[in-house]
Formats: sequence, C-alpha cells, structure tokens
Amino acid sequence: MANRKEPGTDLEPAAGNGLLHRRVFLGAGAMAGVLGAAGMAHAEPLTVPEWVTKPGKRPLPYTQPSPFEGKVQRTIPDQNPLYEPGSAAGRTPHQFLEGMVTPNGLHFEVTHNGVPDIDPDKHLLVIHGLVKRPLKFTVNSLLRYPLTSRFHFVECAGNSGALYGANPVKGTVQQLHGLLSGAEWTGVMLSTLLDEAGIDPKAQWLLAEGGDATGLTRSIPLAKAMDDVMIALYQNGERIRPNNGYPMRLLVPGFQGNMNIKWLRRIRLTEGPMQTRYETSRYSLLLADGKAAQYKLQLDAKSFITRPSPGYQMQGAGLYEISGLAWSGNGTVKQVEVSADGGKSWALAALSGPVLPKMLTRFRAPWKWDGGPAVLQSRVTDDTGYVQPTRDALLLARGAKAQYHFNGITTFQVAAGGEVSHVYA
Amino acid sequence: MANRKEPGTDLEPAAGNGLLHRRVFLGAGAMAGVLGAAGMAHAEPLTVPEWVTKPGKRPLPYTQPSPFEGKVQRTIPDQNPLYEPGSAAGRTPHQFLEGMVTPNGLHFEVTHNGVPDIDPDKHLLVIHGLVKRPLKFTVNSLLRYPLTSRFHFVECAGNSGALYGANPVKGTVQQLHGLLSGAEWTGVMLSTLLDEAGIDPKAQWLLAEGGDATGLTRSIPLAKAMDDVMIALYQNGERIRPNNGYPMRLLVPGFQGNMNIKWLRRIRLTEGPMQTRYETSRYSLLLADGKAAQYKLQLDAKSFITRPSPGYQMQGAGLYEISGLAWSGNGTVKQVEVSADGGKSWALAALSGPVLPKMLTRFRAPWKWDGGPAVLQSRVTDDTGYVQPTRDALLLARGAKAQYHFNGITTFQVAAGGEVSHVYA
Repeated sequence: MANRKEPGTDLEPAAGNGLLHRRVFLGAGAMAGVLGAAGMAHAEPLTVPEWVTKPGKRPLPYTQPSPFEGKVQRTIPDQNPLYEPGSAAGRTPHQFLEGMVTPNGLHFEVTHNGVPDIDPDKHLLVIHGLVKRPLKFTVNSLLRYPLTSRFHFVECAGNSGALYGANPVKGTVQQLHGLLSGAEWTGVMLSTLLDEAGIDPKAQWLLAEGGDATGLTRSIPLAKAMDDVMIALYQNGERIRPNNGYPMRLLVPGFQGNMNIKWLRRIRLTEGPMQTRYETSRYSLLLADGKAAQYKLQLDAKSFITRPSPGYQMQGAGLYEISGLAWSGNGTVKQVEVSADGGKSWALAALSGPVLPKMLTRFRAPWKWDGGPAVLQSRVTDDTGYVQPTRDALLLARGAKAQYHFNGITTFQVAAGGEVSHVYA
Repeated sequence: MANRKEPGTDLEPAAGNGLLHRRVFLGAGAMAGVLGAAGMAHAEPLTVPEWVTKPGKRPLPYTQPSPFEGKVQRTIPDQNPLYEPGSAAGRTPHQFLEGMVTPNGLHFEVTHNGVPDIDPDKHLLVIHGLVKRPLKFTVNSLLRYPLTSRFHFVECAGNSGALYGANPVKGTVQQLHGLLSGAEWTGVMLSTLLDEAGIDPKAQWLLAEGGDATGLTRSIPLAKAMDDVMIALYQNGERIRPNNGYPMRLLVPGFQGNMNIKWLRRIRLTEGPMQTRYETSRYSLLLADGKAAQYKLQLDAKSFITRPSPGYQMQGAGLYEISGLAWSGNGTVKQVEVSADGGKSWALAALSGPVLPKMLTRFRAPWKWDGGPAVLQSRVTDDTGYVQPTRDALLLARGAKAQYHFNGITTFQVAAGGEVSHVYA
C-alpha cells in the first residue's frame, strides 16, 4: 500500500483533536490506504476456504447467532446488585451492537423475583377501580382490538447510576449503560381500553400491577395513560419474550423503565398515586437535603459513545468512526455533538434515520486519531431544547445522594497505547 | 354485557361488505361490547394465578421466545422444492407476526447447499477485476469503515410463485408469501469500497460470489452498486446470523433476494453481466413465447393480508382489524386499499409509520364482518404511481410459464362458518 496517498493531513477539522466533518466518509477515495484493506496483485489467485468445499447445515425452524458470537451476551451479575432476594438484571451489550434496534435476545431486563412462565390461555388482565364497567381481558380478546406499532426505548431509572459514584467504574458500556434497549412494539393503546371501561371523572391516576411473584406496582398519571401508553404484545415482530413480560406488558414511552409493568395483570383507576414500595423506597430521587423527589417519571435526554468504548483496542493512528446512541424521554433527538478533547470543542455527529420520538437514535462521526491521548464525549440536544448536562453540573444540581436518573455526559479516555477507559472529565 | 349498546349499525361504511373508516377504532367507546372484553362486578375478587405464588427463573444471557409460542417457527419443507441436492428454504410465519420488523430468529432463508459455519477470522472479501487496486478485506478491517443503517426488506424472486399455478394452493401466508422479511441492516456502503479500489471506466457490472458450497454468483449493475448496495454485517442490532450470511452479506435493496449474496467472498468488476447459472436457468422470467426476460431485477410493489388469513378462525360476526404488509422494490408505499367484496369496492387502510423506502409497511383497516361470506383483498400503490395488478392482469401480461416475480393481488375467502382460505378471485 506504499503507493497510496495518506490524505489525512489535508482534512479540514470540525473540532479539536482530530474530529472531522461527516463528508470525509462520503468523498470518493478519501479513505484509500487509511483503513484496513490490504492490496493484492491483479493475478493473485483466490484462496478457497474450507466452507466452500463441503455442504453446510440445513435451515433451522428458529435460528440463533453464530457460535463465533458467543461473547455477545447480556451481563448477568453474580452478585445481586440491590441485595434483595431474587433481584437480577440482564444488561444489553451495546459495545457489540449497531443500529437503533436491540435484538430480542439481548433486550435488557430487571426482575425482582425471577421470570415467570405464564400460560397465555390462563392469563387475565383486569381494569377496575374508578371505572364505570370493570372489564376482564384474555390475551385472545386483546388481540381482537386495533393494534398500533411504535419504536420506543425502555430504560431503567437506575441505568448509569454508577456514574454518581465518587470514582469512575472501570466498566464497559454494557456495565455502565446496559439497562437500556430499543425495539418496535406492537399492542393495544391503553386509551382504547379505558374508553371502553368508562373513566370515572374522579380518576386522575392508575395503578398497574405485574403478574409475577413480586407483584410490582407503579402509579401512572391518567393523562399519560390516555396519551401514548400501550399494552404491548409484540416486540420486533414476534410476541414479547418471558423476560420482557410475556404475554403482555405495559409500555410507558419515555418514563422510568420500572413503570413499564411486565406480565401486566391489573390496572386500577385511582384518585391519586398509591405510594407503592417501588415508587417510595425505590425509584424516587434522593436529594442533597435528604428529601426525595417523587414522581419524577420522565427520563431526560442522554447519550453515550459505544465505539470506541472501554474494551475496544485502538489499532493505530488513523481514521475511526465514532458511533453511539442518543435518546430523550421528553421527545426526539435534535442533534448530537462529539468531542475528542474533553468538551473543549464539539463537532456535529450525523444522525442515522429514521429519528423517532422516545426511541434510540444512532449517531456517527469521523475521527482521525493522532495516536496520542484523547478524551471522548457525546452530548445530545432534544427537540425541547434540553441539552445533556456535564456530570459536574448534574451532581451540583442533585447532590451526592442521588441514585437514579443519571443522564450526565459520559467520558472515555483513549490512552496513547490505544486502550479506552471510563473516566470523569 | 347485555346493557351495552352494539353500535355497529350506526357505523358509516368506507367500502362494501363491512369495511369501515379508520376513525371507528379511534372514537371513544366505539367498541364497547363488540370485541372480546368481559364485564365483571366492582366487588368481584381478583383470582391469584399460580405464577404470582412462586419465584420465577433467573435471567438468561441470551433470551428465547416463550415455550408457549412453539408454533411460531419457520416452515422447513420436508421435500426439496426445487428437486436440487441441498436446496432448502425457511419461510417467515407472517400469520403470527405484527409490525414491520421481522425478528432475527424468523427471517426467511433460501440456501442451495446448506448453511456454512464461517470463522470470521478466516473470512476474506476480495474486490478485483476492472479496478485500479484489487483489495482484500477481513471482517475486522471492514468494521473500521463508516457504517450505515437502513431498514430494508429482502424477498426471494420465487416468493408467491405458487400463485402462478392453475389452482389456488390451500396454504397459509407463510407457505404462500413467507420468502419475505424485513430488518434494520447495518454495514459498509459498497460504493465506499469501490471508490477505494478505483473503478476502471470500462466496468459497468460486477459479479458477486458467496462463500458457501454453492458459490452462488449474480451479476449486479454497477450503477446500482454505487447507489444503495451495502455489505451488511449487522441485522436488527446484532451481527447477522449464519443462515443470513454471517459474517457478511450483500444487501441489494429492492432487487431479487437471490442477488443479496450471503457469505460474500468476492466482488469482481466486469464489462457486462456474466450469465451465471442463477441468472439464466433460474431467476429469469420465462415468458409466454418461451423466451426469458433476463435481468428483470427490481421487485415490483406487492401486498397481502396477514390477518385474517388462512388458518385464522373468525370468532363470530363483529368488528375485526384487517392487518397486512405492503412494500415496493421501486420505492416507498404510498397507499394500501383493502376490499371485502373481491375488488368491487375499496377502502383506504392506515399505514403504520415510519413508512420507509424498500421496506415492509404494516397496514391496518377496521372491518365489521356480518358473519356471511366475504372476499378479502389488498392492493398497494407505490410512490412511482405503480398499482399492484390483479392476478388475471398479471397472467395476461406474463403468460402461463412464469415462475418468478409474482406480485398480483392475493385473495382470501371468509366462509360463513368463519374459515379463511386462499382462492382466486
């Protein structure tokens, strides 16, 4: 490849420490010789790999990933993170994924007493409380209703909670931010069923309850329920999986993941919120003065870089594509900026469409790493005008006792040797 | 439920035999009593299901569908449909799916000599022929290039071929139309790599070759390759599965499925098409006069109803939602109409967004079945103005010898007893 011109020095910077304009990756031949292709002679014979020489396997009724992708798994912690009997989490390995859809096998979960194996023919959903006509629904009766499909993220309120800590956890994005996934959900709008039940004018909230051994309950404002809450039956085309609430779950777009009640068995309309365990002792925001901010339900805009991220080994100076995810519980991603100098200067990233409300958006930006130390960050702005804050600004506002809703900027340091690690800016 | 009013007789029709305007499903309380909910007394105690009484299972590193969804599988035919050693197909069960994304486990496949287990560290992609610099790429080197994500369908040219037959096959939509799926694909635009190799001005086509035991080859116009062809590495977020071409496949949006070469190992730039086996003896369109129309590569607009469809048992007269899929290899779905009287009258269906080019679009329409015989059809129009033809019109144009590219209207008959079957209109 010695005859190829290394064009890097001609490239106009978009921000400090090597960030380039998106058009670098669009220009004809711009990358010749700077990436990984190897040259060969015109007459060089093609080698014949082993798998061309023998028949392969027959198709399967339901396929699985390649055995060579065995490392691409959800993280199942050995130790119980909440020190509570039965609680467990499966975290999505975003460092290995691309695009905006999380495959069903890798969607995150948090369970508080295990995953039930529910027989859909024996499952009932009840709508009662402050309604004119209490109603019971089987799975089959729900499937008679009009269906709606929407792409939405689900994020645990505790996602990224480790970043409140005094010292940066030396983990991957899976460990730091893996309680987040995105999918196409199909189901029945809750408003349709509440209309059928007839809402008592006194009702302002509802209580949703899961049909597992935890019986997790959360209070949801009726206005939200009548807006975009869905009883989801399908995820990325197929029926939702047991760990995601089979045969049905609540989908509460943009609100705390914990409110998206899995194995949904009951909706009770009430006058006010019910102050349940999972919205008082947990999932409320403890402030500096010892008081808790209750019912802060929306997840604010957030982003992080998935590549390069901790665990990725840089392969020498040259062009790289920075890739990551951005989202907002309050609306649609408007722009994402990336920095390679710890926030001193910012370049606009390209957003991969379709950019949808309350859904993950993939962003990408070209970067010419000079082989020296670099400090990578991303910062999202949503269509409400909200800008993702720095970690320092978030801690200043929230104090040191907060555990939930961390949405500050994440920082990755690239060492001169090419190792990537999580740091605080 | 005796106290509920059955509002059906007030509903304004959108077309004959019970098709209603979309707003039927949007009006408050419109469905009270006409669908499957059962009433209950305010004081009726809730039953406690078994799975509330005991802890569930721990999370899995990679999850699977519920065991109660065992019937949702790809159809693997016992008999070899092409009477060729090694050929096999896995068909997507669209009668059980919803939304526009096909989950990875159920994406269709056609293989001609089995599915290879390729070690990605030993796989090479070569670009050679009429280029200035022949190049070799490993999987890891390709992953250094800028990535692009797009939602696209893939459809086998032989999909729906049974509808050319003289008698309607009594099959499900899986059997009739299951060689079709849709996903979010992420990979490297082929134009980027061809720019790097440097295109010889004499090159007008390229030959793509798969790295399985078939070594399937197809010729692709260079103009298409430089437009939107991608070397796909990820499908719905994770790396593509062995049956879909792991570690890499060609994605040729809107063109015959067979051209989306799996296990891609070679791209050779050429002056003209190469007249390979899979574009001469197969996948060309045999016309009435015995001549074959070669290199008709784009898949024209098409649609079909997935629910109700053969295998679905109607549950008595009343409101139903008709649901189906529409797509076009030439652009974007503009509208879908449905008929309940065999094409005498048509009602507009609602399209579930985002509606994307060369991707499946989910359509839905409300229908009040009167319990009598009905003949259901769907008809798509794409943004080029092309309207999906009737089966008769297609056969008139193509003659009786055609095997590929069937895109005529599909017809389902609903019998008075509620059985749904495939018929010719």
